[in-house]
Amino acid sequence: MNTNHLEKLGEFGLIRQIQAQAGTAEHLVKGIGDDCAIQRQESDKELLTSTDLLIEGVHFNRQWIGMEDLGRKSAAVNISDIAAMGGQPKSLFLAVASPVDISVSELQQFTRGFLAEIAEYGAILAGGDTCRSPGPLLISVTVQGDVAAGTAICRDGAQVGDAIYVSGTLGDSALALIELHAGRRPDAYLLTRHNTPRARVALGRQLAEQQLASAMLDVSDGVMSDLGHILSASGVGAELELAALPLSKPFRTALKQNPQLIDLALAGGEDYELLLTSAQQDLSEMAALVPKLTKIGHVCQQPGLRIRNFDGSFYQCSRGGFDHFS
Amino acid sequence: MNTNHLEKLGEFGLIRQIQAQAGTAEHLVKGIGDDCAIQRQESDKELLTSTDLLIEGVHFNRQWIGMEDLGRKSAAVNISDIAAMGGQPKSLFLAVASPVDISVSELQQFTRGFLAEIAEYGAILAGGDTCRSPGPLLISVTVQGDVAAGTAICRDGAQVGDAIYVSGTLGDSALALIELHAGRRPDAYLLTRHNTPRARVALGRQLAEQQLASAMLDVSDGVMSDLGHILSASGVGAELELAALPLSKPFRTALKQNPQLIDLALAGGEDYELLLTSAQQDLSEMAALVPKLTKIGHVCQQPGLRIRNFDGSFYQCSRGGFDHFS
Repeated sequence: MNTNHLEKLGEFGLIRQIQAQAGTAEHLVKGIGDDCAIQRQESDKELLTSTDLLIEGVHFNRQWIGMEDLGRKSAAVNISDIAAMGGQPKSLFLAVASPVDISVSELQQFTRGFLAEIAEYGAILAGGDTCRSPGPLLISVTVQGDVAAGTAICRDGAQVGDAIYVSGTLGDSALALIELHAGRRPDAYLLTRHNTPRARVALGRQLAEQQLASAMLDVSDGVMSDLGHILSASGVGAELELAALPLSKPFRTALKQNPQLIDLALAGGEDYELLLTSAQQDLSEMAALVPKLTKIGHVCQQPGLRIRNFDGSFYQCSRGGFDHFS
Repeated sequence: MNTNHLEKLGEFGLIRQIQAQAGTAEHLVKGIGDDCAIQRQESDKELLTSTDLLIEGVHFNRQWIGMEDLGRKSAAVNISDIAAMGGQPKSLFLAVASPVDISVSELQQFTRGFLAEIAEYGAILAGGDTCRSPGPLLISVTVQGDVAAGTAICRDGAQVGDAIYVSGTLGDSALALIELHAGRRPDAYLLTRHNTPRARVALGRQLAEQQLASAMLDVSDGVMSDLGHILSASGVGAELELAALPLSKPFRTALKQNPQLIDLALAGGEDYELLLTSAQQDLSEMAALVPKLTKIGHVCQQPGLRIRNFDGSFYQCSRGGFDHFS
């Protein structure tokens, strides 16, 4: 019998361990250990909240990601939703349902990664829930953040004539996933982009504070699908330039072998970069914005999304948006 | 092929349907449909947050509860944590992972129950997440509420000499579950207590506003186990009177057949009643408190929890507290 098993430590033991590591923050009156977390509110700020499920076999595969990285990723993809509004993440709530084949030390690795990741954004673990799972490993994360009242960047503000920007590079994560599915070892950089994406919190805050963006979201399902959300919420259309998509060096190398991979930059998913529209046409040149923004297209009156190929003709992407039900 | 399947409607279609039913509230600047919900904050109030997982095969069995009731229960048990602090629930976040054998109409029933339940407490659905589950049905609920700053009732305030009270009756839910496990049809009242418990929000708010309780929580794992949390957080001990435990008529009927069932009132779990300590010795007589409080014991210096039997001797309960990992 494995003395490392969760049954031995028990639910309360595990919670006490996590509680001891969770730390404190000025805004947190009471964290883990009561029926609710208690937090101070500031009336000149608005509360941002988002919740995400991560399920083994749907969102991740434990053969391809270590528990500490999984902890980091679970935190980062959730915090990315706060970044996408231009907010500051403050408190996270973590609920984990563990199958019996996961040891206490694996759960501790997961927690270590989760706590290390949220600390990098100045956020804190304020509560959660644990139980066993009769099925796959299941992670539910809720993040709360704040933003100066009235400055959150929503999806519905894109205007005709706005430039469209994306941060960082596109397609890296999806390319790594394809390599993993094919049983090959991905390039180290691509794997990092897949397993430990970073939430673009500092960039999002800059854009909100300086009111540089008219609409914004984070790219989780691929630029095509996510831009579609901005377009339908804003009642506009858009044109993207295939030649303008920002691509990493390892991605470009792979693209030379297989030009079809460009579709991963359009519709691959899990980029966790910021996608935004702005009346300002020169954000790509602003060195203060990190990671760098790249102008990839513009908003137009004509409904729908059109993609210009390298030769100026219209391009038809072979991949649809990502639907977690399909 | 079942045209009712989730694949057909898709993730976004389902979210749009729920969005249309979710309604609005004064505190909600932006609800479902963006990266985050946006809510107003009030600096004279504190934010309360709690999160719960409900997993098929661990927390519920679809053979024993209809989808609409499951929606109600998922909401109520989560809101019960806000009640346990004396707060007012305001916003809920619902994440559901559905196995393929659940139809869209079943998910719609679930949502209908969830929305109906939260409306009864004046709360609103503000966000969520949906995906498919390769395993069991999985429900993750996060609730946010508020309370006048400094008035939340925590677990660590019990004082030597305080009376111990519990609302409603104990053991009903656990007795229903035993009948279900045995393949028998439970008494209708007991089944209602198991499948559609109510969160004691109004009672909790009264206790907080009138500062009547020194410590409080909701009984989810059984009075013995949950009182243990108050005792260890407060650094005190307690004595309970077996004869004082409040029992429903159907429970008393069953108890006559089998006296051992009294242990369900001590350690059965899922009562979702409020358990509190108070310097005031006469809360049982206050008719304004609904449901009625019953004095079941008192806080003492001597560490540990002792239970007085009907004859005055000490009683040994045969059941431990409920551990979701065991």
